[in-house]
Amino acid sequence: MPNTFGHLFRITTWGESHGGGVGVVVDGCPSRLSLSEADIQHDLDRRRPGQSKIVTPRKETDTGHILSGVFQGKTLGTPISILVKNEDQRPEAYSEMETLYRPSHADYTYQAKYGIRNWQGGGRSSARETIGRVAGGSVAAKVLKKFAPKLEIVAFVQSIHNLTTKITPDAVDYDEVEGNIVRWPDAKEAEKAVRLIESVRKKGDSVGGVVGCVVRNVPVGLGEPVFDKLEADLAGAMLSLPAAKGFEIGSGFAGTKLTGSQHNDPFVMRGGKVRTTTNRSGGIQGGISNGEDIYFRVAFKPTATISQAQKTVSVQGKAAILRARGRHDPCVLPRAVPVVEAMVRLILTDHLLRQRAIACPA
Amino acid sequence: MPNTFGHLFRITTWGESHGGGVGVVVDGCPSRLSLSEADIQHDLDRRRPGQSKIVTPRKETDTGHILSGVFQGKTLGTPISILVKNEDQRPEAYSEMETLYRPSHADYTYQAKYGIRNWQGGGRSSARETIGRVAGGSVAAKVLKKFAPKLEIVAFVQSIHNLTTKITPDAVDYDEVEGNIVRWPDAKEAEKAVRLIESVRKKGDSVGGVVGCVVRNVPVGLGEPVFDKLEADLAGAMLSLPAAKGFEIGSGFAGTKLTGSQHNDPFVMRGGKVRTTTNRSGGIQGGISNGEDIYFRVAFKPTATISQAQKTVSVQGKAAILRARGRHDPCVLPRAVPVVEAMVRLILTDHLLRQRAIACPA
Amino acid sequence: MPNTFGHLFRITTWGESHGGGVGVVVDGCPSRLSLSEADIQHDLDRRRPGQSKIVTPRKETDTGHILSGVFQGKTLGTPISILVKNEDQRPEAYSEMETLYRPSHADYTYQAKYGIRNWQGGGRSSARETIGRVAGGSVAAKVLKKFAPKLEIVAFVQSIHNLTTKITPDAVDYDEVEGNIVRWPDAKEAEKAVRLIESVRKKGDSVGGVVGCVVRNVPVGLGEPVFDKLEADLAGAMLSLPAAKGFEIGSGFAGTKLTGSQHNDPFVMRGGKVRTTTNRSGGIQGGISNGEDIYFRVAFKPTATISQAQKTVSVQGKAAILRARGRHDPCVLPRAVPVVEAMVRLILTDHLLRQRAIACPA
Amino acid sequence: MPNTFGHLFRITTWGESHGGGVGVVVDGCPSRLSLSEADIQHDLDRRRPGQSKIVTPRKETDTGHILSGVFQGKTLGTPISILVKNEDQRPEAYSEMETLYRPSHADYTYQAKYGIRNWQGGGRSSARETIGRVAGGSVAAKVLKKFAPKLEIVAFVQSIHNLTTKITPDAVDYDEVEGNIVRWPDAKEAEKAVRLIESVRKKGDSVGGVVGCVVRNVPVGLGEPVFDKLEADLAGAMLSLPAAKGFEIGSGFAGTKLTGSQHNDPFVMRGGKVRTTTNRSGGIQGGISNGEDIYFRVAFKPTATISQAQKTVSVQGKAAILRARGRHDPCVLPRAVPVVEAMVRLILTDHLLRQRAIACPA
Repeated sequence: MPNTFGHLFRITTWGESHGGGVGVVVDGCPSRLSLSEADIQHDLDRRRPGQSKIVTPRKETDTGHILSGVFQGKTLGTPISILVKNEDQRPEAYSEMETLYRPSHADYTYQAKYGIRNWQGGGRSSARETIGRVAGGSVAAKVLKKFAPKLEIVAFVQSIHNLTTKITPDAVDYDEVEGNIVRWPDAKEAEKAVRLIESVRKKGDSVGGVVGCVVRNVPVGLGEPVFDKLEADLAGAMLSLPAAKGFEIGSGFAGTKLTGSQHNDPFVMRGGKVRTTTNRSGGIQGGISNGEDIYFRVAFKPTATISQAQKTVSVQGKAAILRARGRHDPCVLPRAVPVVEAMVRLILTDHLLRQRAIACPA
Repeated sequence: MPNTFGHLFRITTWGESHGGGVGVVVDGCPSRLSLSEADIQHDLDRRRPGQSKIVTPRKETDTGHILSGVFQGKTLGTPISILVKNEDQRPEAYSEMETLYRPSHADYTYQAKYGIRNWQGGGRSSARETIGRVAGGSVAAKVLKKFAPKLEIVAFVQSIHNLTTKITPDAVDYDEVEGNIVRWPDAKEAEKAVRLIESVRKKGDSVGGVVGCVVRNVPVGLGEPVFDKLEADLAGAMLSLPAAKGFEIGSGFAGTKLTGSQHNDPFVMRGGKVRTTTNRSGGIQGGISNGEDIYFRVAFKPTATISQAQKTVSVQGKAAILRARGRHDPCVLPRAVPVVEAMVRLILTDHLLRQRAIACPA
Repeated sequence: MPNTFGHLFRITTWGESHGGGVGVVVDGCPSRLSLSEADIQHDLDRRRPGQSKIVTPRKETDTGHILSGVFQGKTLGTPISILVKNEDQRPEAYSEMETLYRPSHADYTYQAKYGIRNWQGGGRSSARETIGRVAGGSVAAKVLKKFAPKLEIVAFVQSIHNLTTKITPDAVDYDEVEGNIVRWPDAKEAEKAVRLIESVRKKGDSVGGVVGCVVRNVPVGLGEPVFDKLEADLAGAMLSLPAAKGFEIGSGFAGTKLTGSQHNDPFVMRGGKVRTTTNRSGGIQGGISNGEDIYFRVAFKPTATISQAQKTVSVQGKAAILRARGRHDPCVLPRAVPVVEAMVRLILTDHLLRQRAIACPA
Repeated sequence: MPNTFGHLFRITTWGESHGGGVGVVVDGCPSRLSLSEADIQHDLDRRRPGQSKIVTPRKETDTGHILSGVFQGKTLGTPISILVKNEDQRPEAYSEMETLYRPSHADYTYQAKYGIRNWQGGGRSSARETIGRVAGGSVAAKVLKKFAPKLEIVAFVQSIHNLTTKITPDAVDYDEVEGNIVRWPDAKEAEKAVRLIESVRKKGDSVGGVVGCVVRNVPVGLGEPVFDKLEADLAGAMLSLPAAKGFEIGSGFAGTKLTGSQHNDPFVMRGGKVRTTTNRSGGIQGGISNGEDIYFRVAFKPTATISQAQKTVSVQGKAAILRARGRHDPCVLPRAVPVVEAMVRLILTDHLLRQRAIACPA
C-alpha cells in the first residue's frame, strides 16, 4: 500500500522535505539483534546531501534517532521507529514553486491527484523520502547478517551519460566503489566521472546514468513463483525510486538479441552444488534465487531540477518561465547507490523470513 | 503475496499445467457490471496455444467457466471464480523432466525451494499460469469501461531478435496489431517476422524480443507517490511474467544519454488542460499519471525450451544431456501481448478504484 | 480483504449457494505435506447438510475436489484450489425472496450495498460459504500436525436456548462430542438437546446457543502484541461466522465481576515450565499464547430463517408477509462446530508460520 | 499485520512506555481535510493519565506533535506522522519486573516469544500503546465528518464490577457521559461508581467492567459479507485492546435464549426508508450496516496490576512474591472509552473509503 513496503519485514515511511522531519517504522524485525544509531548513521551518511563536491550542497546532518523497538542495544521484536529531523529548510528558496509546475517533477500530478501539495522543496516527492528506506535497510542488514552472513550487496555507478565503466559486475569491489565520491567501480576512472558531473553542473544542467547492482552468496530458494517473483519485487522496488526509468536483470534487453541455445545457462555440478556455467538468468530462475550472483541494472534519468530557464505553466494555467533556485544534485547516481542497496536489503530480508516460515523438512 | 495481485481489485490465481486445471478468483469487482463467459473467452483465445502456425501446437480450447459472482449476466460484487480445465495433458512427454533440470527453467529452483515439484510440463511455472491473469484482466476491462470509458490499452510486438518495427507507439493501431499472427504493429512487415520465427523453429531454437505497450486517455491522478508508483507497479507486474528480463518506461535506458535540459517535458496548456510538449516521462510523473500516453517496453528472453540437445545435471547430481520433447513456442511474444495488456488492466483498475476511495472535493 | 483470510497461510473463498459451486484457494501452504481429498471430505462431512435428523435436509454430498497444488499425494507449495459443486439447487423454492427481504437476513443490506443480489437461497450470505473455510481448515490441520503435533482443537455445543451443559472445557472429549448428532459434550444429555431442537422445528421456529472451544497443547509464543493479538484474531474470525453475535475468552464477561486479586492467574513452575495455577486468561496473555489451554465461547443467534409468517417489506417498499419455504436448520450449532474448529486451525497455522519466520536464537 | 491496522485508511503504531516515545503513522487519509494538533490533543486528553482522581497519577501531558502530512492546516494525502514523547519515566519503579513475571500481564509471553523484553513499565504491552490508536482515530474523525457528517459514536461505561447502569444505549448522551470522570451515562449515579473505584484502590485491588458503544446515523451498506464483516472487524479491534475479554453485538449472548420468531427484526418502511422495528441485529446484517444504530459491548477484566502481594515466578524459574510499585489504574474503563471510540472511527473510516471505491451506479 502507499507508504508501506514488504510483507513480513515491512517498512512504513513518512515525511516531507519541509516539515517536522522524515522517518520510518520498521515492523516484523526479529528480536535480539544488535542495533545502534551508529549502524543506521553509517548508511544515512552515504545517502546524505553535502557529502562531496558533486552532490547537492543542502546542509543536513540527517541524524537518525531510534525512538522505539530497541532495548539495551538489542531489537525487541516490536516496531522500530526512526526519526530524522529536517534541518536545512529554506521554503523561501522554493517560493516560485507555489505557482509554477516544475517540468518532469511531480508538482502537477500531486496537485491533480490531491488538490493540494506541499510546494516547499518537493514535499513528499523529494528524494528526502528515501531516508526512511535507507534507515529501514540498515535494520534489514542486521537480519541478513544473522541469517545469511555471507551475503554481499554491492551497488555501483555503471554509467553516467555517455561514460560507461568497463568493469564487469563480478569484478566490482565494495571498497573500491566506496573509495571514490562517484561510487564508480574503477577508481582510476572515477576522476573522469567527477569532471563530467562538474562540467554539467556548471552549465546548470544535469545528467543521468545507470546503477548496477550485484548480490553475492544469495541463499538458494528465495522468491516466489508468480507475482512475487524475486525479479518482480526488485523491478517494482527500483522503479519506485525517484528518477528511475528502467530495470533489467541478467541478460536484460540485450538478451533479446540471442537465441535460446545461446541464452540458456547450462547446469553443472560444482563444489557438490548445482551451478550454472553462464549467468544470463541473473541469479534468478522462475522467480526464485538459484545461488548464482543476482545482477541487475537501473536506469536513472537526468535530474529534473536544473538551473536553466524552462517553459512551463502556472497553477492558474498561464504560460511561464521557471528558473529553479533550490539546491540540487547535478547527477543523482552517487547518492542513489545506497538507496538501491537498501531496497535490495529490504526485499531479501522479507523473502528470507518468508522462506523460513514455510521451509519444511521432508 | 505469492499468488494474489492487487489491493482493492485483486486476483488470486492457481493451477499447474498438468492437473485439474487453472483458474482465478477475482475479488473486489464492483457490482452491476455486465459480464459473460464470451467476454472472457475473447481474451483467452488471444492467449491460447494453437492459435496460429507460429505458436505451440498444444491443443487446448482454454474454455473459461464462470463459477460464481455473476447473476443474470451482472456482477454481484462477490468473488468471481473462473475455471479453465486442462485438456491436452501428456505427462509422458515430460518424463525426462522427472530426473533432469531444464536449463534456464524453474525446475531446479522449485526443487531447491520446495523439495518437490510437479515435473509434468512445468507445473506452476508453466506459462499456463497466465490464463488466470488474462481472465482476471477481462473482468478488469469491464471496470475500466465503466469508469474510464475512453481508456485504450494496446500492447504489440516491437522487436523479435534483430528485427524491430519502425512504427512509433503513438501510431500503433489495435486492429492492425490484432490483424496479424505476430501482433506486429506494421501489417506489411508482419510476414517478415513470421518467417523469422519459423526459421528459428526449424532449427529447434527460439528467439526473444520486446513487447511495447501504449495506454491512451489515462485519467490524470492515478498512482501513488512512493512504493506503489504507477511505474513501479507496472515494472513489478511485467517482471512477474514468465521470460521477462527488463522493463523501461518513457525514455528508459536511452534517456540516460540525455541531459536534464534535453530530457524534461515542458508544460503547456492545450484544450484547457495541462499537457506536455514531449513525453519522455512516459505518461507518469512522481508515480502518478499526468494524462499523457503511458508508454513502456518489456524485454522477453528467448524461450528456454528448445529442441536442441543441452548440457544439464540430473536431480541426483549427475551430468546429463537434455533434449526436450514437449511442445513449445519458438517465440513467446505473440502470446505475451494479451498477457501484458491484462496486467495493465489489473493495475489501472486497482489504482482507479483506490483513487475513487480517497478523491475528496475541496 | 473481503474474501481472503490470513497472512502467511491464507485462504480465499468464493461461491454462492446457487451457481456453479463454492470453493477455496489455499495459498502459503508448506510443501511436502500429505494431503488427499479424503482428508478434506472428513471435515466437509461434519459440516454437511442432511447429516442427521436435526439439521437441514438439503441434499448435498459436498464432495471436495482438489484441482491444484497437490502432486502424487503431497502438497507442492503452490495454491491448493478446492471445488465443491452445488447440487441441490431449487431456485424456485426461493422465488419470494426475489421481491421480499427476509427479516434478520442479509437480503436488504446486500441490495443496499451492491444494488443487486443473488436472491436464490441466500447467495454469498448463505452458510454454504463456510465450505471453503472448512476445506481450508483441513489443509491447515496438516500444517499443525507437522509443526505442533500434540495440538488438539475441540469445539462443542455448550448451550442451546436454555439448556446448558455442566461439562467444563477441560473435561470435554472430542470423541464424545462427535459421538452424538448435537455435538454435545455430555453424551448422556445429548438426547435432551435433540428433543429441544426437534420441538422447535415442529413449531416452525429456531433456536440459538453457545459453542465452546478448547485448544490444548498450544505452543508458547504464538500471537502478536498489538492488533493481531491471538484473541483479537479469534474474535474477528468468530464474529465473521454467519449468525455469530458474541465472543468471550477465558473469564469473559463474567470476569468483569471479579477484582484483580481474584482474577489474576498466579505463575508457578510445573514440569520445568512456567505455568499458571488458574486460567482466567484463557491461555493468552498480552495477545500471545502462554501454553495453557485456550478457551473461548461464541454466541450464535437463533437461525433467521423460520417457517412462521413474518412481517417484512418488499424490494419496492411495500409492507408484506413472508413465509419461508426453503429448507433450513432449526439450530445452526451442531454444524457450526466444525466451522469454528476450521477457523481456529487457520489462525493457529498462520501464527505458527509467522512465528517460524521471526524466531531467532540468541 | 503486527502493528498496522486497516486497509485503505490504515494506522501503524509504535513505541514502548519507556523509551523515546510512542506514535502513529496514518496512511491513506484523503487530502484537503482540516487537521490541527488541537484536534488530536482533545482526544489524547480524554485518554491521558492523571486526568482525574480515579485514574493512574502517572504524569504525562501526552502532547501530540504532527510531524508530516499536513500543510497550512490541511491534510496532504501523504502519511501523517504523530509523535508523543514519553515524559514521566521511572524505570527504577519497575526494577522488580526485570526478574519477576507479573501475573496476568504479558511479561512471560513476551519473554517466551522474543527472548527479550523491555521490562520498564510494560514496554510495548503498556496501555500507552493505545495513544497511537487514539491519535489515528482523531484523524479518522475528520474523514467521517466529511463523508458521513451526521454519524455519532458514543462509548460509555455500562458497568463496573457489580454496578450496572440502567440507561439503555439509545438514551445515552455524549455530553452526559463526558460530564463525569467515570464516563458513566447517568450523571446522577456517577458518584456511586467513583466511590466504588476509590474503595477498590484503597485495598490495593482493581475492578473491571463493560464498555458499551452506540453508533448513530451509520450509512447503509458499510461492511463486507465474509471475513471483513463489520461486526468481525469490531470484534477483532475490541479484543485487540489491553484487558479486553469479550465482545457482543446487538442481542449478544442474551440473544441465544430467544427463539428465531422472538429474535428476528421485522422490516417496515419509515420515512421512505427500509427500517427495522426492533434492533437485535445491532445495526448490522450479513456483515453490512443496515442504517439502524450499531450497538455493542466490550468486557474488560480487572486491571492486572495491583498493589497486593501476588505469587509468581522469576525469570530464573524460582517461586517469588511480587508487590507492584508502579502507578496504575484501579479501573481501566474510564480511559478505555476514548480508545473504543477511536477503534470504531478507524473501522468505519476504512469501510467508508472502501465502499466509495466500489460504489457503482446502475
